[in-house]
Amino acid sequence: MANAKFEFIESMLKKYRDITSEAMEPFFVIKEPKRYLYDLLPQYPKRGGKGLRPGLCIATCRVFGGSTNSAIRSAASLEFFHNMFLIHDDIEDYSEFRRGKPTLHRRYGTPLAINAGDAMNCLASAPLIENTDILGPQLSSEVFYEISHMVRETVEGQAIELGWMHDNKITLTDKDYLRMTLKKTCWYTYIHPCRIGALIGRGGTENLDVFNKFGYYMGAAFQIQDDVLNLIGEKRKYGKEIGGDIWEGKRTLVLIHLLNHCTSSEREKIRIFLAKPRDKRLRGEVNWIFNLMMRYGSIKHAIVSARHLANEALKEFDIAYKDAVDSEDKRFIKGIVHYMIEREL
Amino acid sequence: MANAKFEFIESMLKKYRDITSEAMEPFFVIKEPKRYLYDLLPQYPKRGGKGLRPGLCIATCRVFGGSTNSAIRSAASLEFFHNMFLIHDDIEDYSEFRRGKPTLHRRYGTPLAINAGDAMNCLASAPLIENTDILGPQLSSEVFYEISHMVRETVEGQAIELGWMHDNKITLTDKDYLRMTLKKTCWYTYIHPCRIGALIGRGGTENLDVFNKFGYYMGAAFQIQDDVLNLIGEKRKYGKEIGGDIWEGKRTLVLIHLLNHCTSSEREKIRIFLAKPRDKRLRGEVNWIFNLMMRYGSIKHAIVSARHLANEALKEFDIAYKDAVDSEDKRFIKGIVHYMIEREL
Repeated sequence: MANAKFEFIESMLKKYRDITSEAMEPFFVIKEPKRYLYDLLPQYPKRGGKGLRPGLCIATCRVFGGSTNSAIRSAASLEFFHNMFLIHDDIEDYSEFRRGKPTLHRRYGTPLAINAGDAMNCLASAPLIENTDILGPQLSSEVFYEISHMVRETVEGQAIELGWMHDNKITLTDKDYLRMTLKKTCWYTYIHPCRIGALIGRGGTENLDVFNKFGYYMGAAFQIQDDVLNLIGEKRKYGKEIGGDIWEGKRTLVLIHLLNHCTSSEREKIRIFLAKPRDKRLRGEVNWIFNLMMRYGSIKHAIVSARHLANEALKEFDIAYKDAVDSEDKRFIKGIVHYMIEREL
Repeated sequence: MANAKFEFIESMLKKYRDITSEAMEPFFVIKEPKRYLYDLLPQYPKRGGKGLRPGLCIATCRVFGGSTNSAIRSAASLEFFHNMFLIHDDIEDYSEFRRGKPTLHRRYGTPLAINAGDAMNCLASAPLIENTDILGPQLSSEVFYEISHMVRETVEGQAIELGWMHDNKITLTDKDYLRMTLKKTCWYTYIHPCRIGALIGRGGTENLDVFNKFGYYMGAAFQIQDDVLNLIGEKRKYGKEIGGDIWEGKRTLVLIHLLNHCTSSEREKIRIFLAKPRDKRLRGEVNWIFNLMMRYGSIKHAIVSARHLANEALKEFDIAYKDAVDSEDKRFIKGIVHYMIEREL
């Protein structure tokens, strides 16, 4: 990580992450059963994440005239939802590592992990119910609508991706990938954090759609960079198994490029690999696919695509935030775009 | 089913079930992806359930002066949450049948089924957000608090039960079972439907705790009867595999009684059976355990316990509903107590 370059972004992320963690704390009451439920809940949050969603939400709220305090419960809710999605997605994707440690279902088994995800979902709603005290009934209700749409888009996106694996789809295009990513990643990681921040900061719902394009480009760039890091990142920084997406059969932009550019006999071999359950896939096969990705320029294609999308995001930033006061927060939000495609974690 | 005897209860259940289904309908918008998500969502609801939770909620609202319309969205939410729990519980319990047909995860695989449950969770919150129009901000917010507590108790109860299986616990008492059942079943099936009905009907939160004991006794009686039917019911009526709880290793009151009354060598044999994964358990072993349950009077013990709890529920009914007007709805709620322990489905 070019630490000096991103020192400012990382310190801002940390600042809002810490505030959000503090706001999440009271919701982590320890009740019974500890061993089977309450011990599980703080694990992913305590492993540390980037805190991207709460950071974007709070900073956006502030640049439009709101206070940190007015956005804090919504930010906490976003972070809870994120952790809920992680728990369930890890099961759904048969993932083995999360933030450098074994996934929850590998530690406790799938039944207890599904249930812990449902408990996290319950925690995620709690700060929204209490939002009324700070925001009043109307604005709290609007935040609920935003969150409800966010969850719906996310489960739709997840269903599309899981469905592709379920049917072993190999005829996909960049467009399919981007549509899936819009739903699975962009709404909950970028669009809604910004929309909710602006909604609270400005005190109303006007003109929220202006964040949709910005969040879409930014989210797609982020997800593609994530797919690239999954292939060529450092495990210590990235926190997940390198090449994990190949093991899991994920339809990343990289794999889709490869499927559309390799020979038909290679494609058939990949199809057979993808048709097998994860535990029947072999390291040699994973390495072979990785080498094909290098040879056909599929990873390069993803890197170029991420850069292109990030540039579009920068243009949309200027539109979406044109009325925002110039400030540390505004520079932070803009800086995230670069950070996301140049980051190593 | 003694049809004539329960004709009134069943017609009331049907009436409120139909109204609730209609209220749920608009939330089942069909969007993309159909095949991987929206086709899955209406399946459990369409297989038909008893409609107990919405029925109790609406009838309780009405006997305390509220209208059907004022409770309908909360009733719809309860039914959505119930279906969400069913989807995830079926995965967590490795259940094979639900309402006479294969469980969702057997049809579509665990990943898509977990995700469908999360989507159902999202549907469940939607009517609560729209409650404001009917109930105003204060009462809607109170309903949210009730629902939040309901979900939390339910996941705690589920965690306790799953934890027992995870650790292969065989030293449990009736008291352990009743505490787990209070959390896993009573709150969401009886206590909160009544509390929410009364909250809306009376327009405030005073004196809601009076429903806790009533719902506890009724819910425990209901759950024990369910465990009994799982062993000696008719599959066609019951809708799940007969003996399924033994296959799944569930710590029912019947199994707990058996473990506390059989010889130590029998207990050891049962422990070994329970330590195996479901697909390694044999029909002969399941039959042997069933026969032990008969021989040691464990099923009888459960039937007697359910009757005793139902009698306690009737006493609590008179306390909880003493201010309620005498009406069809009041007779319906009281009648459910008998119905639940004499039902065959």
